[in-house]
Amino acid sequence: MEADLLRVKETLKQAGASGGVSGHEHMAEMLEHVLDVSGKHVRPAITLLASKFHPHDEKLPVLMGTAVELLHIATLVHDDTIDKAEVRRGRPTVSNLWGKDVALLVGDYIFAKSATYVCDTGNVRVIRTFAETIMELSAGQLKEYMAAYDWQQTRESYWKRIFGKTASLFSTAAETGALLGNAPEKEVQALKSYGYNLGMAFQVIDDILDFEGSQTVVGKPVGNDLAQGTLTLPAIVFMERHPKDDSIKAFFEDSENAEKRQKAIENIREPGNMAAAHRIANDLRDKAKGSLSILPDTAVRRSLLNLADYVCDRNL
Amino acid sequence: MEADLLRVKETLKQAGASGGVSGHEHMAEMLEHVLDVSGKHVRPAITLLASKFHPHDEKLPVLMGTAVELLHIATLVHDDTIDKAEVRRGRPTVSNLWGKDVALLVGDYIFAKSATYVCDTGNVRVIRTFAETIMELSAGQLKEYMAAYDWQQTRESYWKRIFGKTASLFSTAAETGALLGNAPEKEVQALKSYGYNLGMAFQVIDDILDFEGSQTVVGKPVGNDLAQGTLTLPAIVFMERHPKDDSIKAFFEDSENAEKRQKAIENIREPGNMAAAHRIANDLRDKAKGSLSILPDTAVRRSLLNLADYVCDRNL
Repeated sequence: MEADLLRVKETLKQAGASGGVSGHEHMAEMLEHVLDVSGKHVRPAITLLASKFHPHDEKLPVLMGTAVELLHIATLVHDDTIDKAEVRRGRPTVSNLWGKDVALLVGDYIFAKSATYVCDTGNVRVIRTFAETIMELSAGQLKEYMAAYDWQQTRESYWKRIFGKTASLFSTAAETGALLGNAPEKEVQALKSYGYNLGMAFQVIDDILDFEGSQTVVGKPVGNDLAQGTLTLPAIVFMERHPKDDSIKAFFEDSENAEKRQKAIENIREPGNMAAAHRIANDLRDKAKGSLSILPDTAVRRSLLNLADYVCDRNL
Repeated sequence: MEADLLRVKETLKQAGASGGVSGHEHMAEMLEHVLDVSGKHVRPAITLLASKFHPHDEKLPVLMGTAVELLHIATLVHDDTIDKAEVRRGRPTVSNLWGKDVALLVGDYIFAKSATYVCDTGNVRVIRTFAETIMELSAGQLKEYMAAYDWQQTRESYWKRIFGKTASLFSTAAETGALLGNAPEKEVQALKSYGYNLGMAFQVIDDILDFEGSQTVVGKPVGNDLAQGTLTLPAIVFMERHPKDDSIKAFFEDSENAEKRQKAIENIREPGNMAAAHRIANDLRDKAKGSLSILPDTAVRRSLLNLADYVCDRNL
């Protein structure tokens, strides 16, 4: 597993370098900048582990893991452009360094580059799943964008939104790993469900940390999502628990008002409320782990269970 | 052929409508707006014709033609965002109506949507060629962007640039049509060469028309490319013919100066210079037609020859 992940990182580096080789000189510099981010590689780790239950060509999940991470990076480049983010993991974003237009084209290029790795698996079902995931990701981001400053969103619309923007790729990472690992259909569905629920848990925790983190650790002010008009689970849970409180509505209708913003954030940060949000994240994590029950109790399954705990215990 | 093109248009309409079906409500409205453009469908016509030399499954080129047109539309959505274009064929652009951020996500969605049609052909070589084309398109656009206001560009760098932004998709339209039409490799290469040269001719003529058209007909001021800092063939040919003239350099170094801009545009528009540019376009068109010499003299080949004349005789 460690060796496989190293091979993914090696392939990612080559992907950056190849920008120059193929006559795309300008891309090379930007790719190198973007790919130099030493992320946690959670998504390719899921692909690699999901492939390891049956004998298979070991090159294929490495190609797929590379594609999954590249796709993730492409969405970050475009998302940072939309969010006007200046820094990502301590490094200036592409849009910050070279402008929005360049970030748009670099993102497109990385989308396409990721697809070439999927093509190299030669598996048409895997390729189609991947293309559909890009549709889900962009539709999910558009949903979030269009729903800004709308306080009347339900839990249901939140689930749809975070499936699109996050869980769809986790789900695909697991499903394609299982497919390329020659898993029977029942196991493919179990691993896909693991990826789906883990992705949902991952995003819920991200949204919780946005309210819990202190500015210095997260690098963003507490309640940044809400401040930007994005309604996430902690806010929705608060409104469910306090149907008569209108602090969030009041802020969204007067979004420049710092006092109203502070009041809404304080309400959401109330310990009982945050605990309720945490319980939902834990339920999703347990559902992810439960999906693996039909798989044999091997070291690989234990790694997937540990990965779920690791992802959900992130403490910024 | 007419019937096939109608099927492509039908599939494009369905592609728009399906935005809503699959839970992507916001996308549906925007896709409908974008797909309602009654273009000339030159690219899918090339795919369909290129497939018709041998018996084959007729559904496949229709899927591919749809993908090729969708990919073209996706690049237009992103290009209009970068160029800050307000109108495209008489309709407001996505970025104009809904803003740059939405246009970015809608473009991403259409890229992915186009890929799903390619996946449905089930042909991995075709899918990979398609993904590589998206890389060429974005790298080509980036080259153009980075080369803005650089007057020291050669014909060579111009060829590379317009291959990426235009001819790569024409080439792929022809190559994938031939592949899905069960053409032997030699014919695949001949048709690919036809697409490549026709695409190059198409872009050269676009760049010529930018200097020839009157503002009312083209909808843009004459010399708009040069005004935006894009050096195209007519300007390069002028500098080759008048190595001591520095009117273009003078304008690029002082790009807000309307007098210098006017002087450079007038020089390029000189009849002898435009005739030289036209000769280059005609040579490319003849090269495209010549590529078809190894193919049997059928109605399909004649249609491809006519298409080349039609595309190159555009008179705005």
